[in-house]
Amino acid sequence: MNIVTEQKLHVTKPLNLKSGNVLKAYELAYETYGQLNAKKDNAVLICHALSGNHHVAGYHEGADKPGWWDNMIGSGKPINTDKLFVVCMNNLGGCHGTTGPVSINKDTGKEYGFDFPIVTVEDWVRTQKVLMDALNISKWQFIIGGSLGGMQAFQWTLDYPACVSNSIIIAAAPKLTAQNIAFNEVARQAIMGDPDWCNGNYLKNEKVPKRGLALARMLGHITYLSDKSMAKKFGRDLKEEKFNFNFDVEFQIESYLRYQGEKFVDSFDANTYLLMTKALDYYDPFNEVDFDKKITISNSKYLLLSFTSDWRFPPSRSEDIVKTLINYNKNVSYACINSDGGHDAFLMKNDNYFEVMRNFIENNIDG
Amino acid sequence: MNIVTEQKLHVTKPLNLKSGNVLKAYELAYETYGQLNAKKDNAVLICHALSGNHHVAGYHEGADKPGWWDNMIGSGKPINTDKLFVVCMNNLGGCHGTTGPVSINKDTGKEYGFDFPIVTVEDWVRTQKVLMDALNISKWQFIIGGSLGGMQAFQWTLDYPACVSNSIIIAAAPKLTAQNIAFNEVARQAIMGDPDWCNGNYLKNEKVPKRGLALARMLGHITYLSDKSMAKKFGRDLKEEKFNFNFDVEFQIESYLRYQGEKFVDSFDANTYLLMTKALDYYDPFNEVDFDKKITISNSKYLLLSFTSDWRFPPSRSEDIVKTLINYNKNVSYACINSDGGHDAFLMKNDNYFEVMRNFIENNIDG
Repeated sequence: MNIVTEQKLHVTKPLNLKSGNVLKAYELAYETYGQLNAKKDNAVLICHALSGNHHVAGYHEGADKPGWWDNMIGSGKPINTDKLFVVCMNNLGGCHGTTGPVSINKDTGKEYGFDFPIVTVEDWVRTQKVLMDALNISKWQFIIGGSLGGMQAFQWTLDYPACVSNSIIIAAAPKLTAQNIAFNEVARQAIMGDPDWCNGNYLKNEKVPKRGLALARMLGHITYLSDKSMAKKFGRDLKEEKFNFNFDVEFQIESYLRYQGEKFVDSFDANTYLLMTKALDYYDPFNEVDFDKKITISNSKYLLLSFTSDWRFPPSRSEDIVKTLINYNKNVSYACINSDGGHDAFLMKNDNYFEVMRNFIENNIDG
Repeated sequence: MNIVTEQKLHVTKPLNLKSGNVLKAYELAYETYGQLNAKKDNAVLICHALSGNHHVAGYHEGADKPGWWDNMIGSGKPINTDKLFVVCMNNLGGCHGTTGPVSINKDTGKEYGFDFPIVTVEDWVRTQKVLMDALNISKWQFIIGGSLGGMQAFQWTLDYPACVSNSIIIAAAPKLTAQNIAFNEVARQAIMGDPDWCNGNYLKNEKVPKRGLALARMLGHITYLSDKSMAKKFGRDLKEEKFNFNFDVEFQIESYLRYQGEKFVDSFDANTYLLMTKALDYYDPFNEVDFDKKITISNSKYLLLSFTSDWRFPPSRSEDIVKTLINYNKNVSYACINSDGGHDAFLMKNDNYFEVMRNFIENNIDG
């Protein structure tokens, strides 16, 4: 069992955020797996998605569950830690160690709470670059992310083109659609409409907006799974043998969703959830004034992956990125993986998916 | 302008509900359009969906908006009131005149509230039959409904086969999928998790679970529209010229959803909403023990209609009904209408859709 320990980087140089706000100082929590080689050319950055964190692989001391992408990362796995040095950081605004709404604001001596500034994909890339510099890495061999993580993997090639050899963008989109934003908005309204949210200051009031956050998570879950995978997993199976004709749980899917909602509340912060959904909403690199200039400079290789049953970010959305990259004569590979897993397929073991990942990585390790 | 007035039927014969509960007495609110002919063979029943009611066409005195399907029903329209006598009833458990949670329970002298029993599609069909008898109609020339209304139009042909000549089932499904139930469950949790819901007794407590009901409606709206129609209508259009990087409305779609949620709260009862979602969840006629026997007896003609962009009840769901009807050698017509309107397409004017409706109705008016 591979035991891993969280590390921290204290940054005192102020960070100018895209919103115009400035963060005077902050901490970055991260983990690493494998060894950085002497030439420092085997480093991999993993970018996490909405509810993820830096504990991407291995086990924490005493834990019985590994990191969230342990099936993909490790000795002999597609992201092979026998050869690669893997880094994953908790994103700014997160709630698992990196400075975010639950952290103490040194100016006030109290938690930031809802005062924590809006953060964007571009801000995360900048802080990942700060960590990269601190680790004395000059180029990532691979930057890899799924969903919101894929957006970061793409943004790196625009903002630090000299620092990325290969960008692997999985189950992502170049921007949210109106429907995507709509789901985020309902999730936000669920949280912000919970009286226990206390206008964002629930920590000071010693409350937790459990109902709102659980609702947001339940809704998220529906969009992460495919209709087909839900049908396979739950169908119309009943919790008991027959209908009770009341508002208790009748169907297994109700029980599952309620459980997912309740479980999430114990491990995630509501204000962080709000921030993550906003980062998704704002992301729209093709629409930035300097996109043409930036993408022209990028000489990263790209691998795009999508999943047939993903309706949150369907294959067509990955293909929008692929087409744009082709238009700019970039080196881009693309595979659409057959899967019933929905958006969450990017987290699941799947032979075709893992083989594509393994081959692309093996073929593009330098030296 | 066609002025229409609500009518009421007071029923004193107890109603045995599918749940096992008994409703001692109840009132049915309904409206009619056109004239019942001497032979009483030109009657049409319209069944409403989740948030609909009996005001399906024409104008109430002084109103500036017509009933919810006024584009379809009226003089010279596909459901032509020059020839047909159209009836629409508010379903039991509703909040627009028929007995439901906001009505006074004569046993207690107070509103039913959350004590109102669970109602099902089968119960609605039985009460529609009570109204039919009171109107001295022995056979509906057409029973027509969209979505949850389509389920009622189908159920009539099973429960009262001698009383239906033609059943028009639009944008419906033979049962909910796990995903459909999941969306309903999130809506219910939103309402029931609102502290102002007061365990269902908000009326007695002089409160309204506005936040929860608005959330449920916002979520519903996402599933009624297609990704494409949302993209066309809103795209990523901003409310103001540039991002404010805060939690106020940034995108038009957020503003639209918040408005839809707030508007709904003024015209709909939260406990009724809960009941309607449960009726949807429970409906599963193919799985009833007597289905084979019932469908064999039916000699109704069927018209099934679906819409290409409907992802709540996609064409494949209507086709499940069509295939079953074909297996039983029923007279069934089916059209899948090309539309970007999503599930709500069944409420929208569309030349192909209206022509199919008009032709089927014209060709099947008796005498």
